[in-house]
Amino acid sequence: MSKFTIVNQEFLPAETASVLITDLAIQRGYGIFDFFKTIDGRPVFLEDHLDRFYNSAAAMHLTVDLSREELKTLLLKLIEKNGIADSGIRITLTGGYSPDGYGIAKPNMIITQTEMILSKQISLEGISLITHQYQRQLSYAKTLDYLMAVWLQPVIKEKGADDVLYHNNGIVSECPRANFFIIDQSGHVVTTRENLLKGIIRKHVLEIAGGLNLLQHRDITLDDLKNCKEAFITSSTKNILPVTKIDGRVVGDGYAGPVSKLLSEKLQLKAAQH
Amino acid sequence: MSKFTIVNQEFLPAETASVLITDLAIQRGYGIFDFFKTIDGRPVFLEDHLDRFYNSAAAMHLTVDLSREELKTLLLKLIEKNGIADSGIRITLTGGYSPDGYGIAKPNMIITQTEMILSKQISLEGISLITHQYQRQLSYAKTLDYLMAVWLQPVIKEKGADDVLYHNNGIVSECPRANFFIIDQSGHVVTTRENLLKGIIRKHVLEIAGGLNLLQHRDITLDDLKNCKEAFITSSTKNILPVTKIDGRVVGDGYAGPVSKLLSEKLQLKAAQH
Repeated sequence: MSKFTIVNQEFLPAETASVLITDLAIQRGYGIFDFFKTIDGRPVFLEDHLDRFYNSAAAMHLTVDLSREELKTLLLKLIEKNGIADSGIRITLTGGYSPDGYGIAKPNMIITQTEMILSKQISLEGISLITHQYQRQLSYAKTLDYLMAVWLQPVIKEKGADDVLYHNNGIVSECPRANFFIIDQSGHVVTTRENLLKGIIRKHVLEIAGGLNLLQHRDITLDDLKNCKEAFITSSTKNILPVTKIDGRVVGDGYAGPVSKLLSEKLQLKAAQH
Repeated sequence: MSKFTIVNQEFLPAETASVLITDLAIQRGYGIFDFFKTIDGRPVFLEDHLDRFYNSAAAMHLTVDLSREELKTLLLKLIEKNGIADSGIRITLTGGYSPDGYGIAKPNMIITQTEMILSKQISLEGISLITHQYQRQLSYAKTLDYLMAVWLQPVIKEKGADDVLYHNNGIVSECPRANFFIIDQSGHVVTTRENLLKGIIRKHVLEIAGGLNLLQHRDITLDDLKNCKEAFITSSTKNILPVTKIDGRVVGDGYAGPVSKLLSEKLQLKAAQH
């Protein structure tokens, strides 16, 4: 059975949902989005994602013509209609059908739901990252700008890595679709504080680490990458995913470390209670 | 009568031409384009624009499934079918319908033609710019990334200016959709050499200025903006457009200067002969 996608509040078969080519995303790559998961048909950390969605829209001068309650109602209707228990839901807001192909118009809102197989166990092998000097534009907003991320994919593949980690002026910021944490030599959980997108899982990991008195408020430097005991990334799809290699150098003993495992367990509980 | 837009070689009524929402421009703002004008139904500097179109595509790992000759044939067919004498033609190439919404797929090519009223006379009053610190990503390619340009529009309006001029590390680069030139105190034509999109009109103005022995090969600094005798921007739609105010400071006597006028006349001749 065909699933539904919503375009400007209209429910359309997912395979045929389209926008006119005058949309400012196609003309100028302009728009924002947010993405959250559902587990057993229940949205996880939805309020956090709605906070960020409206914040990103405002930061990019885009007006949302639905109130928060109206949007929530629409999302729940989609979840009910599609009947996909474990899924990822993406809300995209573009610059709209711009008469001159340059100025912001009435935004188009597109909501898609796709099935997602969620792992409840932390990966023991983890992933491998390469570093790249780059600073995202308007990094506090979840914009559509993934130019560098998409462009770097052949480079990542060529180096046999799984993803890329951005840094600028000696400070390590984020992966294109995930935040980045280390456990430093003193056993503290560290993540860079500014010039990055503040992820929802990042927020909850910070709360958990704070509750365990494991948090140190400072930025991650390039040197930290060479000396850290553990490293991991966080995102709504990946939860806590260990990083066991950075630029070819093995992190710790090359497997998920004890602090990463502890935080991962506590995060699973927090998401389930939510 | 409805005009046509081409989507992947199919001629569609311009008003209804659309792409699926899985296109990588909507998912990740990923794609490139080029834009040229027609005068009396004749494309201007077409070979230059095709050079740049294929170069931008290659730089962004996008494959064009039409040979240069096939693309030219398609463009001429559009010009013939639409019958718009003076127009702007835009060829957009996106990252295509990406199964995972992240990796590059078979690109979608969209070709639009819109009527354009072309001025043959140089503007005497010129325009007003504000400066902004910014460096375009992959600046040698004509990508869809106009995030900063679109985002800055309210700021430009608020300051009563017409457009924005980017600079980085003390070097002035370009406007979002135009190149920037000055005539310095010694009467030389100067434009920054790298980290910017090399416009087609820029290329021809450089050739003209070189032929007149007016060219100086160096970059424009922020200090140059305060001391220049004349300034102008170049683009396919604007040709040579004088800049008579920068950050509130009047350039020269506040009107189009003699070198700008001379270059503009010679450019008109060159475009007509082409």
